[in-house]
Amino acid sequence: MTWFIGGKIGSWRALRVDPVVGIPLARVSRLEVTEREAQPPIGDWVLKGVMSFERYVTRAERSLLEARQGSLGRPSATRAALIPVRKSAAWWDLPQDERRAVLEERSHHIRTGLEYLPDVARRLYHSREFGEPFDFLTWFEYSPDHAAAFEQLVERLRSAEEWRYVEREVDVRMTWDPPNPATTRVPR
Amino acid sequence: MTWFIGGKIGSWRALRVDPVVGIPLARVSRLEVTEREAQPPIGDWVLKGVMSFERYVTRAERSLLEARQGSLGRPSATRAALIPVRKSAAWWDLPQDERRAVLEERSHHIRTGLEYLPDVARRLYHSREFGEPFDFLTWFEYSPDHAAAFEQLVERLRSAEEWRYVEREVDVRMTWDPPNPATTRVPR
Repeated sequence: MTWFIGGKIGSWRALRVDPVVGIPLARVSRLEVTEREAQPPIGDWVLKGVMSFERYVTRAERSLLEARQGSLGRPSATRAALIPVRKSAAWWDLPQDERRAVLEERSHHIRTGLEYLPDVARRLYHSREFGEPFDFLTWFEYSPDHAAAFEQLVERLRSAEEWRYVEREVDVRMTWDPPNPATTRVPR
Repeated sequence: MTWFIGGKIGSWRALRVDPVVGIPLARVSRLEVTEREAQPPIGDWVLKGVMSFERYVTRAERSLLEARQGSLGRPSATRAALIPVRKSAAWWDLPQDERRAVLEERSHHIRTGLEYLPDVARRLYHSREFGEPFDFLTWFEYSPDHAAAFEQLVERLRSAEEWRYVEREVDVRMTWDPPNPATTRVPR
């Protein structure tokens, strides 16, 4: 389990906490990412999720993803985004084949992300089964040089059919700024 | 979240607690199913899971399932089975298309279950994301008249390719036998 703690401490300095749709999250100045259990009031908000098996990716797509994969924790990737998303009941009520069709055949979610690899590294955490306020927490890392590309990626995903099923989304942007400059980025 | 408590109390009397593969569960005399949080030592063992969205079923299959669906809690369905299953790392490492191919195109998991509806009602609970010892808990209910059919269903599933990925399975069989005969079966 990974905890994302928004508050006044942490190695990531928050640049923005923007509501995209639905209820916002409180503006915070810093964010900490940890494997140690955390509950409010340790932060203004605490989100948690787990890495899990892949729900939609085919063998062929996985081969492409692995070939271009960007790892987390690269020293040059000093920008990060945490994008918590909750999808509607209508999404969860779709059978597997129709969710896949919306996600990839019609919205090109996987293929679009692939275009931005390895510059924009990405990791998906699942929250829905824990009764959390969001279904997914997506974590992205990229260098300042690729910030414009990242904006384009986010824009493309939000203009796709899949996004019509998003009922809550917040966009948290950060820059790596540990209180102790000697802090090492540990790839999670 | 639903808790399955194996111990000395509960409205279901345990007939067998058989190890199928891997580490067994302790033999218990009764089982309680509840939505209230429970932890050992309230029972000899406590398993928990949640209902979740469907991971493999297509729209066409769902239509067939809904047309024949057997509901839980039918007074005539006085037999039940709880079959906790853990699958191997090799299973979870398969991409979605290959898991689906093993599960249905080659093992006919969905189609086989359909043949036994509505006589054998079934509900799947997911446990994997909670760090539980099993990935799934499947609950079945049927009348004594359909006990032989249920044995056949279980046998067919265990002889399929999908079952090669099962690394732990226990088979708990029960009969409805509440201490107070006036206890009403509440469909969960």
